[in-house]
Amino acid sequence: MNILAVGSVALDTIEAPGGRVEEELGGSVTYFSLAASLFAPVAVVAVVGDDFPEEAAQMFFDRGVDCAGLERRSGRTFRWCGRYEGDVNVAITESTELGVFADFSPVIPEAYRDHPFVALGNVDPLMQLAVLEQLRKPTFVAVDTMNYWIDCQRDDVEEVIKRADVLTVNDAEAKMLGGEVNLIRAMARLLELGPRYVLAKKGEHGAILMARDFEFVLPAFPVREVADPTGAGDSFAGGFLGYLAESEDVSPANLCRAVAYGAAVASFAVEGLGTSGLAGLTRRDVDERLQRLGDMTRF
Amino acid sequence: MNILAVGSVALDTIEAPGGRVEEELGGSVTYFSLAASLFAPVAVVAVVGDDFPEEAAQMFFDRGVDCAGLERRSGRTFRWCGRYEGDVNVAITESTELGVFADFSPVIPEAYRDHPFVALGNVDPLMQLAVLEQLRKPTFVAVDTMNYWIDCQRDDVEEVIKRADVLTVNDAEAKMLGGEVNLIRAMARLLELGPRYVLAKKGEHGAILMARDFEFVLPAFPVREVADPTGAGDSFAGGFLGYLAESEDVSPANLCRAVAYGAAVASFAVEGLGTSGLAGLTRRDVDERLQRLGDMTRF
Repeated sequence: MNILAVGSVALDTIEAPGGRVEEELGGSVTYFSLAASLFAPVAVVAVVGDDFPEEAAQMFFDRGVDCAGLERRSGRTFRWCGRYEGDVNVAITESTELGVFADFSPVIPEAYRDHPFVALGNVDPLMQLAVLEQLRKPTFVAVDTMNYWIDCQRDDVEEVIKRADVLTVNDAEAKMLGGEVNLIRAMARLLELGPRYVLAKKGEHGAILMARDFEFVLPAFPVREVADPTGAGDSFAGGFLGYLAESEDVSPANLCRAVAYGAAVASFAVEGLGTSGLAGLTRRDVDERLQRLGDMTRF
Repeated sequence: MNILAVGSVALDTIEAPGGRVEEELGGSVTYFSLAASLFAPVAVVAVVGDDFPEEAAQMFFDRGVDCAGLERRSGRTFRWCGRYEGDVNVAITESTELGVFADFSPVIPEAYRDHPFVALGNVDPLMQLAVLEQLRKPTFVAVDTMNYWIDCQRDDVEEVIKRADVLTVNDAEAKMLGGEVNLIRAMARLLELGPRYVLAKKGEHGAILMARDFEFVLPAFPVREVADPTGAGDSFAGGFLGYLAESEDVSPANLCRAVAYGAAVASFAVEGLGTSGLAGLTRRDVDERLQRLGDMTRF
């Protein structure tokens, strides 16, 4: 089944343990779609400036990502510049330049409005709501958010979450949004806001999926060389939703399996600088790693 | 099969999310033996002062822990005073008073020298070596250590590790001792020092067991109310070694199952202040939680 993904496409400059990239393809919807397209067809809605290099879009084409919704506007592309030190779980943002992303108001092409699986990346919650208004009865909506929006527009964030099937956040965001220092209790609070599931991504410590009547806990695949954690969470979400769309099954048991697919894809994402960990990846690689993760967690 | 446990018995004063305890029974060998005795007979070798309250020892008797090796000397019992703030994964030590523990030189009673399972708590590595000298061909030796000894007596620590079947450390200690910021790589380095297994305990993030030819990763049981994390790691080690001693099976597959038992016991330990989380615990409670952890991690 088809996936619609809305979020940011960026040009990233990153200093990571594995080296440095300068103004290379990044952004939440980029990592998400490169991951999800291993499983199912993905259509992207995002905006870039007229400085966006043609070669940067090649990676989308190579993966068969539908870019008809990738709007090109006059101005500069969103840029993010960050680095990692010591604890690679925390990115230090050096600069953010919104460019054309600042007043992006996503228009969902008619052909995408029936896409059953939807991923709303961590953009302005009002933008996320505006996207939902344009859709016709999606089967499964995944919503991401981040500290900035939780701080500045909590009410809007809560309104989007209410309409989500799954809220995907990292552990710090879950604690902040749930107002609890204990992650499990924070997730339980987030469920009260209305989503059917909360998926907390904990980086090297794995992930937790919670519904009102069950919890699923999964460690991360043990990675020895983290080259660059940028995009790991979005890659996780891409593997998760991609597998759900491919299997056309949103039962609780299949959601757990989808979390494991998310973990498998994310483990590849962090092994390469920028998007390179996802670039050459095949579905077969992912299946092998999923199998290994299954073997490593069985007792 | 019998377990011999050597380590510290202390009087702890703790400020934790669940409340405050003052001069109550604590110490590494206390938590270890209360956990391990759910599975197999445990004999303790430790030292207390003549101020050690009779009631404090009652908990050992209630669990059938053999305290013939609990030496009582003139002087004050080891005292630890600590608290937790925000991130309950990190204890803030306010004071440590070694008392009679300062010149403890453990003599292993003749009756214990053939005990097949041995746990050496995080005491002076020279003391750990002196214990090993007194034993006759133990089947399985678990060694713990801590940052203080790694800093001050690294060579001695390495000498003990070489002779261990499993080194049980927390993630920070593993990184420090292995000299790597990546935990998986740090564990691989620790294996090079000679132990057959390295078990890294990651608190709320679970645990990793590594041998030269396999890795086992396990998330923690999701606990909603962490009353007091004191002793969680020792309780984990107690559940782990206790199950191995009970099942008389140190195959890799059974070690993985033992890690899960460690996680189950530790999850109870943190739910109560001081040792209270372990006090009323039954083997049946642990089995139920193990079952739930198994269900929660299957995909």
